This record gives sequence, C-alpha cells and structure tokens, in this order.
Amino acid sequence: MKPLSLIDNAFLLLEQRQQPLHVAALCVLQPPPDAPPDFAYRLAERMRQSTGAVPPFNHRLVRRAGINFWEEADDFDIAQHFVHLALPKPGRMRELLAMISRVHAAHLDRAYPLWRCYLIEGLADGRIALYFKIHHALVDGVAGIRLLMKTMGPDAEASLAIPPPWEAYTRRGGKRSLPLPSPALRGVETLRGLARQGVASAAPVWHRLSQSRRDKRAGDPACVDAAQAPRSIFNQNISGSRRFAAQSYSRARVKAIAAHFGATSNDVVLAMCGSALRRYLIDNNALPSDPLVAAVPVSTRSDDGTSGNEVAFALTHLGTHIADPAERLCAVKGCMDYNKAALRSLNPAQLYAYEGLLFAPSLFGLLTGQRRGRTVVNVVISHVPGPSEDLYWQGCRLDGIYPVSVVIHQIALNITLISRNGEIDFGLIGCRRTLPHMQRLLDYLEESIVELEKAIGVTAAEAVTEEA
Amino acid sequence: MKPLSLIDNAFLLLEQRQQPLHVAALCVLQPPPDAPPDFAYRLAERMRQSTGAVPPFNHRLVRRAGINFWEEADDFDIAQHFVHLALPKPGRMRELLAMISRVHAAHLDRAYPLWRCYLIEGLADGRIALYFKIHHALVDGVAGIRLLMKTMGPDAEASLAIPPPWEAYTRRGGKRSLPLPSPALRGVETLRGLARQGVASAAPVWHRLSQSRRDKRAGDPACVDAAQAPRSIFNQNISGSRRFAAQSYSRARVKAIAAHFGATSNDVVLAMCGSALRRYLIDNNALPSDPLVAAVPVSTRSDDGTSGNEVAFALTHLGTHIADPAERLCAVKGCMDYNKAALRSLNPAQLYAYEGLLFAPSLFGLLTGQRRGRTVVNVVISHVPGPSEDLYWQGCRLDGIYPVSVVIHQIALNITLISRNGEIDFGLIGCRRTLPHMQRLLDYLEESIVELEKAIGVTAAEAVTEEA
Repeated sequence: MKPLSLIDNAFLLLEQRQQPLHVAALCVLQPPPDAPPDFAYRLAERMRQSTGAVPPFNHRLVRRAGINFWEEADDFDIAQHFVHLALPKPGRMRELLAMISRVHAAHLDRAYPLWRCYLIEGLADGRIALYFKIHHALVDGVAGIRLLMKTMGPDAEASLAIPPPWEAYTRRGGKRSLPLPSPALRGVETLRGLARQGVASAAPVWHRLSQSRRDKRAGDPACVDAAQAPRSIFNQNISGSRRFAAQSYSRARVKAIAAHFGATSNDVVLAMCGSALRRYLIDNNALPSDPLVAAVPVSTRSDDGTSGNEVAFALTHLGTHIADPAERLCAVKGCMDYNKAALRSLNPAQLYAYEGLLFAPSLFGLLTGQRRGRTVVNVVISHVPGPSEDLYWQGCRLDGIYPVSVVIHQIALNITLISRNGEIDFGLIGCRRTLPHMQRLLDYLEESIVELEKAIGVTAAEAVTEEA
Repeated sequence: MKPLSLIDNAFLLLEQRQQPLHVAALCVLQPPPDAPPDFAYRLAERMRQSTGAVPPFNHRLVRRAGINFWEEADDFDIAQHFVHLALPKPGRMRELLAMISRVHAAHLDRAYPLWRCYLIEGLADGRIALYFKIHHALVDGVAGIRLLMKTMGPDAEASLAIPPPWEAYTRRGGKRSLPLPSPALRGVETLRGLARQGVASAAPVWHRLSQSRRDKRAGDPACVDAAQAPRSIFNQNISGSRRFAAQSYSRARVKAIAAHFGATSNDVVLAMCGSALRRYLIDNNALPSDPLVAAVPVSTRSDDGTSGNEVAFALTHLGTHIADPAERLCAVKGCMDYNKAALRSLNPAQLYAYEGLLFAPSLFGLLTGQRRGRTVVNVVISHVPGPSEDLYWQGCRLDGIYPVSVVIHQIALNITLISRNGEIDFGLIGCRRTLPHMQRLLDYLEESIVELEKAIGVTAAEAVTEEA
C-alpha cells in the first residue's frame, strides 16, 4: 500500500458528477481477411481468460484515516474490466460514436482498479473497435495511448502473441507527459520544488515570464496570454453528457499545405481547428470578435513534432477573427513560432516549472470551481505523435486511434489528435448540452483543408501523389 | 417552475456516487411473427420521431438560490432519452443481464429530465428488450411500472397506436405507492402531519406501535422488529457496480403450494426467497444463526394480493434459520399473518403514518449514512401486482417484466417481483462487489419451488395442469 501522489490525489478530489476525469482511446480495427463470423466473440473469450493485471492496472483505491492509498488488488475480476459490446444496426460510425459518447460519460467504480476495456463488434463494414478507458489518476492520457500502442505490433500474426495492455504495462518512473489539467497541478509541485532549490535555479523561468509580459504590453500579436481569451459558448459549466466525434484526415494533404507555408503540420492542424471553430461559432451566431485562445502542447524540437518527447503547454490564438484561411494559418504559425522561441530558451526542468507557473493559478481555480465565470482558455487542442508504421492488435490492422479526452467546467471542448502514417486521427469530446451539433466540426475540419488547398492552388489528389 | 417536494428533494440529496437512486424495469418482448429483420431498427426510428414529453418526463432540475425546482423543459432531445442498443453474440439472457447490470449502475444526467429508455436488440431467439430507467425523484418504482404497463394493450395491432410512456403519462396527484426508501422519508412528513392534526388522530397508530412492542417482549416469534436483524454479508456499504439477475417462475406452481398451506402466493414467494438466501449464505459460509429480516410490502386485503392497492411496508423474518422448507414457509406465513392483522386495524391514512414512524428513524439514518454499522433490515423484497392478461407493446407480446430497483449502503440486495398471468417475474439487483455470484440465487429460487412441491407430494406438471 502506498499513498497517492499529490497529482493522482487531485484528479480524484477534483472529479465531479458532471466532470469525470478519465481518459480513453477508441481504436478502429480491421480483422484479418480470413476472420470467421464469430471473430469478435472468440477474441472476447480470449481476453476473458485473463486472470491478472500488473501495476497500475491492479491498483485499487483504499482510504485509511482520511488518506487515499493505492493497494495492489489480488482479486482480479476480468468481467468488471473487460466488456463485450455490439452496435445496433445499421452499424455505421455514427452508431459507434453515439455509443462512445454515452460510455465515456459514465464514471469508473472506485471500488475496483480504475480502468475498463470494451471490445465493440457490429460495424457494418466488418471492422471492430476497442475502447480503452483509464482514470487520469492512474495514468495520463498520452502515456495511456502509448501503452495501448505498445500492445500492438507491425506484424499481424505476431501481434496475436502480445498480451493485453493490463498484463503488459510497466510504469516507467519519473516525469509525466502532457495530461490535460496537469499544468495546473504541476504548478503546485513546481512551487514546492522552487522553494526547495532556492531562487537561483528559477531565474531563467522568471526571466521568460517577464519577457512575455513585455512583448504582450508592446502589442505583439504572436504573444498570447490567458487574460485575452474572450468569453465564448465553449466556456460554460458542463453537464454530465458527452458528444464524441472522430474522423481521420489525410496527413499528406496537411503536409503539402504546411510545406507551402513553411509551417509545421501542427500549425496547419491548429489553423484547421480555428477554421472549423469559426464556422461553428458563426452557425451558432456566437463568434466573439477576439480570437479564441487554445492551450496546446508544443514540441521544442525544430522538426515536424511527431517524434519529439520534450513537449510543453503553450497558448495560441486560433485566428477565428480572420476570414481568410491563408491569413489565419500565418497568424497561428506566428503564435507558435513565438512560443517555440520562448520555450527553447529553457531546459526541460525549467520548461516544466514555466508552464506550471503559467497555468497553475487559473487552471487550478477552474478545476476546483473557484474561477467560474472567468475564461482562461477557450479550448484545449493536443497533438500526440503516433506510430509511423502499420500496427496490428490481436491480428487486426489499426485503421484509426482516436483519443477521447476530458472536458471540465468552463472548457467544454477538447480536441486531441494523433498523427499516424498516412492519417491524422481527430478525437473531439464536448459537453453534449453546451455544444449542439458538435459533430458538424468534422465536416468543417475537412472543408478547412479544401479551403487551404484552394488558397495555394493544390488539389487533394496532387498533395497525396506528391507525398507518395 | 415549482419547488420539489420534500421527498423528491430527499432522493436527490441522498443520491451518492455508489448509490444512484433511479429505478427501472426490463421488459422482454416477442416481436410479431411476420416481423422483418430490421424490426428493432424501424421501431427505434419510430421512437426517435418523438418530439415532446409530458410531465413528469419534461421536468428538468434547476437550482435557484440553493433551492431545487422542477422546470418544464421545452428543448426536448429524444437522442438524450431514447437509446438503441444491441447485445453482443451469442445474445443469451446472460448477455442481456450483464448489459442491464452495467447500464443500471450509471447515473442519469441532472442537466436533462431524469429518465432514459433503451431498446435492445440481438437476443438469439429473436426477442427484443425494453429497459426503462427513471429517477426516484420523478416517479416511484411501482408507479413507474404501472405507467409502463399503461402504454401496453391487450391487442397486438392496437398496441401500435399507443404513444410511448413519455408522451402518454399524466401524474395523478396525491399519495405515492410503495417506493423503496419512502417509508423513511414518509416518517418526516408523517410527523409534520400529526403535529398539524393534533395527537387525537394519531391514537390508533400509537396504540398499534405499543401492541407490537408488547408482543415482541412476550416472545411472539411472528412479531418481528428492526432490532432483531442479524448482521449479514448483505449489510455492508456498497460499491457503484451492480449485478442484475432476472427470471420468471410458474405462478401456477406457486399457487398450488400456497393452496396446500392455506397461505398466500406472497407467503410462498417470501419463503422461496428465504430458501434461496439460506442456500446462498451457506455457500458463502456466512449464514447467521438468527433469521434474516426482510422489509416487505403487504396487502391489507385478505385475498391473494394481486389487485390490492392499499399496501403497507412490514417486517418479516425469512426463516433462514430453519432447514425444513415446509416449516420455513409456515414460519414466514405466521409473520405475515401477524402483520396483516396488525395493519388491518388501521385505516389507510393511519397505515401511512404507522409505517412512516416504524421505519423513519432507522431507514433515514441508513440513507444518510449516519447509521452505518447498524443492521436495520437485511433485504428488501417487494411484490408488485402485474397485468392479469397478455399485453402487447408496439406489436410485441410482453414475455416478462422484471423490476430493476435500488440498493443502498447496508442493504446490498433488493428483490422485486411482478405477478403476471401465468408467471412471476423476479428482478434481483445487488452490489456486484458485495455479493459474488449473486445470479446463483435464480437457480436456488427454482430449487426452492421443487423442494416445497416435494414436501407436499405434488409435481410441477400436476400443479400446472390443476391450474389450467
């Protein structure tokens, strides 16, 4: 038995009825060509043979004298953790997304280790889906996706021998990578760390903070701070119901646009989000005159960002006040370039401290509900590097891996995406009540690519051919 | 907008993460012989045409200045309230019960009117299921089942024209019938009522309470009070996970046994529960030496109890300390006869007051968690009168209607049953973690009928033939 870390504990304390704090991934999988009709059933039966789980999948919450501990549960109950579901007819992606929207809204039972794995059959095209849900107190979102991918392999046949995630994973100690609300909590840890280490080691961090403040005051449009986020329909208290929308977009097309503008794929993706959100807000007659501000992870390496591990949170506006798509992309790129230059002046430990201090007061206030009515950021957009080759899980080819993240009061929308070989998989999660017809954002994202291609005079076919 | 009643409010306040306070019914339905393969899909599409709901199905919770109100929502969203599900293969009752166990564990979203209706396809035998879930603050369990039955009709064809429950129901004012924890809350109302009316009107109630106390002191084994309930494995704090088990038993066989013993069907059903629970406790090496005490509704009419409307809560032991099944039934009948005689001396208003006062302190303490560690009753067993003829819903014959009730901390098992023509439909809901392999109770209930038939020298076939 060991007491929970400050961060793990916070995720439990801050969880509310309308604000569950688990993360998940939805994988769409293509069974092998010779799969029998009862393929999913047999796969489910095989999973149900599992008789144990490794840490943290066997960690159960216990409370003694008011303190939360993890104990290693020795009464593993696979029926509690593995669920076989089927889609109703006609079994379109629409039915799958509606199911995930509902299942993601339900809390995990704290009497058991805080995760659950769903195998879903019944897609009309014969594909199956895997939805894996885990509490943020157990593992953060990106680590969760990495661990899921670690149970996949490049060879269909060999992938059958890889044990399921709960039997395979071993937590690597040390630093966590970018969970959604961690920066807030990190701030608390950072302040304790700085207090211990003395003020000297913190100098570059303070320096960076003041430089940003000076740039902001000088009116640099690329320098974005939390205070400038306008109020928007995304920034309301949320209900307990969710809407999940997911789609894959061509990575070659995004890359072709990026190359034309000397931008990164991440810049293009952010501009796409800006474009889609602008259109959605116009639909709802709710476009603020100031641009939306997004909290985004930024790779501090200079390349495309898919292999970078040193990732920090930064703020960018999304150019939603700009009508022209090319101009919008340039504005977003400007923000991101500013962020990268700023963050590159810090080493990883300082980065960690910097973003903690940047976000701590406001996000912590949000999570605890003390800052209701104050907009800090309008939306969270995370870009997670994915696999660069075809992967197989239990003999099935991975056709898409869509993150299902967390929304919290005052930030009713989260967009997380994974770049894979060939595709970028978008997972959008929002409060169903706050964001009517949120799934339309999927169409608007597609249209935003077409718009940018039109702006640079390239067709989709050309972009894909060039890449090949 | 109107403020919630004391009782409705209490159901919201007392709801906890592990203790959702909604009730439900699971109907198993046989589609018409000429149903097309996409029958369920078409039915779902028809339900999705619904554009509005009548009270209380349009009542949404709003909070103003710390007070809860119901407001009539005018933005009806059928996609939030109606859900189409499918069972995974092989589509046995087992898969259906596992699905209901999970779905029943999830809270309703308080941002919307507090109910949801699920249409479930995929049973291997071609039948479909309807699971209807509603918050106890909106309507109590028995009223909920009645309203569901009101949307069914004796004619298959004509039943197609009956609107779904949320379009049809009108709440009839006045007294509520037996919800599970109402007696506790009723006590509070009763005390206020008695205070208003003066002591005189309460005399028969006080008289009855003292008589019971005297009988108990004199050692009458048929007089059961809350203080005598032994500690048992059923009386622990619960987790948020559920196990639902459901099965129909032959009503003719139960009636034949009842006739032999000069007992009511209800007496036999209680003895069956006693028998099954005894066996389950022996399995788990956890049989208390004192008999389990059940809170049960009792009809104050002298007949079989299927048409009685004046129903009160009473306590009975279940003879779990007695090895002989016939002897157990006689002991349970003794308790129930005592209860009926006692309750018959009171008029309905006095009954209402009596049971409120009897249960209020202990059950209220339980619900609020102030009486943890003290066993009040071991189990709740409700027997609800059902339809006496074949019923059809949307063209499908009703094959079974299984109540899915509520469990609370310290009462981890609830057995509710509905007597229909030909069958008694049992719905057992329990805390999954507290009650391992709870579904075995279904087999033990069947065996308890066989045991009693053996005791009176009747075979199942004879019982059914005699009835016909």
